Amino acid sequence: MSVLRAKGSRVLEASKMLRLASTDSKNAALKAIAKAIEDNRKSILKANSDDVSTARSKGIRESLVDRLSLNSSRIDGMIKACHDVMLLNDPVGEVDVTWVQKDGLRISRERVPLGAIGIIYESRPNVTVDASILAFKAGNSVLLKGGSDALNSNKAIVMAINSGLSIAGLPEGCVELIEDTSREAVSEMLKMREYLSLIIPRGGAGLIKFVVENSTVPVIETGTGNCHIYVDHSADFAKSIDIIVNAKTQRPGTCNAVETVLVHEKIAGAFLPQLQGVLSKLRVELRGCERSRKYAEMLPAIEEDFYMEFLDLIMAVKVVKDVHEAIDHIERYSSHHSEAILTEDYSNARYFLNAIDSAVVYVNASTRFTDGGEFGFGSEIGISTQKLHARGPFGLRELTSYKYTVLGDYQVRE
Amino acid sequence: MSVLRAKGSRVLEASKMLRLASTDSKNAALKAIAKAIEDNRKSILKANSDDVSTARSKGIRESLVDRLSLNSSRIDGMIKACHDVMLLNDPVGEVDVTWVQKDGLRISRERVPLGAIGIIYESRPNVTVDASILAFKAGNSVLLKGGSDALNSNKAIVMAINSGLSIAGLPEGCVELIEDTSREAVSEMLKMREYLSLIIPRGGAGLIKFVVENSTVPVIETGTGNCHIYVDHSADFAKSIDIIVNAKTQRPGTCNAVETVLVHEKIAGAFLPQLQGVLSKLRVELRGCERSRKYAEMLPAIEEDFYMEFLDLIMAVKVVKDVHEAIDHIERYSSHHSEAILTEDYSNARYFLNAIDSAVVYVNASTRFTDGGEFGFGSEIGISTQKLHARGPFGLRELTSYKYTVLGDYQVRE
Repeated sequence: MSVLRAKGSRVLEASKMLRLASTDSKNAALKAIAKAIEDNRKSILKANSDDVSTARSKGIRESLVDRLSLNSSRIDGMIKACHDVMLLNDPVGEVDVTWVQKDGLRISRERVPLGAIGIIYESRPNVTVDASILAFKAGNSVLLKGGSDALNSNKAIVMAINSGLSIAGLPEGCVELIEDTSREAVSEMLKMREYLSLIIPRGGAGLIKFVVENSTVPVIETGTGNCHIYVDHSADFAKSIDIIVNAKTQRPGTCNAVETVLVHEKIAGAFLPQLQGVLSKLRVELRGCERSRKYAEMLPAIEEDFYMEFLDLIMAVKVVKDVHEAIDHIERYSSHHSEAILTEDYSNARYFLNAIDSAVVYVNASTRFTDGGEFGFGSEIGISTQKLHARGPFGLRELTSYKYTVLGDYQVRE
Repeated sequence: MSVLRAKGSRVLEASKMLRLASTDSKNAALKAIAKAIEDNRKSILKANSDDVSTARSKGIRESLVDRLSLNSSRIDGMIKACHDVMLLNDPVGEVDVTWVQKDGLRISRERVPLGAIGIIYESRPNVTVDASILAFKAGNSVLLKGGSDALNSNKAIVMAINSGLSIAGLPEGCVELIEDTSREAVSEMLKMREYLSLIIPRGGAGLIKFVVENSTVPVIETGTGNCHIYVDHSADFAKSIDIIVNAKTQRPGTCNAVETVLVHEKIAGAFLPQLQGVLSKLRVELRGCERSRKYAEMLPAIEEDFYMEFLDLIMAVKVVKDVHEAIDHIERYSSHHSEAILTEDYSNARYFLNAIDSAVVYVNASTRFTDGGEFGFGSEIGISTQKLHARGPFGLRELTSYKYTVLGDYQVRE
């Protein structure tokens, strides 16, 4: 058995114990993990500083170095994350529904852990903690495959996590790190159906595409957000501009930031100059369709811009005939993450809510609310843009499955 | 664009219309489909008789010819299926939960169709109707790929379905049949992520394995049932024998039939001779572990037998030390479909319910109840044995996804 499969087997075995762990024991382990991270703060920072030096000497981009780098305040963040997850409700054991059939069978649908989960991510050591503890709280074990640049950091962090688990009496296999950072190791992991219930890729489009195309383990896709706001003819201008400013500029690098604004043709002439005036002061680069450029100064948009998740202070703008054309545009270009209509027209609001097929559809609110915390779910693994299993914020509840329990009185089927 | 991708694109376009179709209009279409099948009874039977002759001339097994063959009563079954699905509650638009956040955002989680679904199945023309109408009622379009031996039958059936859809004013793309029966066509279909939300393989282990290993579209696995019954030391003998007889012999070819019975060592000496006596009269072949063969006449079981889904009047038997060894055995050999404990011991019942990680876990009832109809869900596509999306009976509700709708009052994120 390869090293990797041996780890897979350990993670699966650990999931069988963890499935039966009480909420109290899981919370005790989270507390012990937080303490172990605190106790190992120095060794984690030392390992990370080695990673950062090596990465710099290889000349990797400064934005990637920033994501790789830990400091004392980021370690504080990891410790706080453990305490935050302790406070979240444990979904395991929740009964969604119970009913009694005519023949007396009492059937319940109950939340259970998914099992062993593979997580593949880039060189961001905070994900090592955040993803592990969330999966763990939902009763799952995890097999982690982080980016090669963060290997020393991840080893130090997982060592701390394991010492916390061990103090809490839980097996190390609850959180295992793959230390082989080759592409071949990822390929082998993607075929480990006998051990893993699910693989979650966290990272850029290239990583997600590779995982989706090569995995025989079920995959949850998260992240890509080409989000739209449609400003209807009846929208309040000032409030609409506030929402667009919030959705574009509050954190432009997030998946729930708006990337394209569609404007009803009746108001485009009056609205677009105002919008452009405000956004230009905030240094947002606008790329407009031909019609929108008649009303306000913008760079010309090419077809490709409407497919883009800019993740930056760049926004595409298009004038549309009505709510129908807005919906057609969204259906064509959207990544089906989050879309909003801004309107005072009841029928258009209702129609937009029904017709748009995205994870979250808004009337008169910023797309930035698509977030586990903002929805009241607490931490999340990401935002699912696929239809299967879970859509939208992928948090603790979405990290579970269910089973049916049936209590009988020696019934047989006729 | 290939013929296949053109069909994929048509199915996706149809799904966008179907998503917005009312329950009434879907039921009207189901009624029109039932009538069209009735009106085309002769041409369907003629096409099927051509298929059956060709299959026979190729010398295929008689059991497969039986599954391929239609007759007037099987056509009646298809028509009845349409009427049955009309009566089922439409899950689309159901609101699972609504809540209001502190900031006033009103958030709802609402059931929506999955979209376009690919269904890959063997030469069973009844599946063409059953799968299509169930997916359709949940607002999904379907791309069908049936077995090559049933091609003429499937063409005739889909022509009837399409004439029903057209009378009801719905586009033909709601139900499309792939007429290219080559393996290459299946491979191409399995990569059509831009059109299909989901692929469901219905058939034997080989078909399912091929789909799982080659699909980049998410897959739902259904069907394999290596189900267990554990007879605890406190179980009522007569009632236990009734349940085992029911679970093994009522329909041995189904996935919820029992394949292995585990017996507590304390009662094995008294129970097994009684069980063997009853089952031998029903011509059930028993394959026992060494210990069980001391108590009753059975063939010797080999390791492989405990992995088998016999789908026949064959059953494996094993003596175990206690409920823990029973659970260990099930964890190792089960396909995680359905397992039962027969007991009068409250603590053992409770422990078994918690510890077993299968889609359905029973106390004192036959595993044969794992069925959409028996659970009160109505028709089903199959029994899901995977953890993602849905587990157990995969019916109308499981053929949907959800989206969040958020009603705001111009909120922005702080």
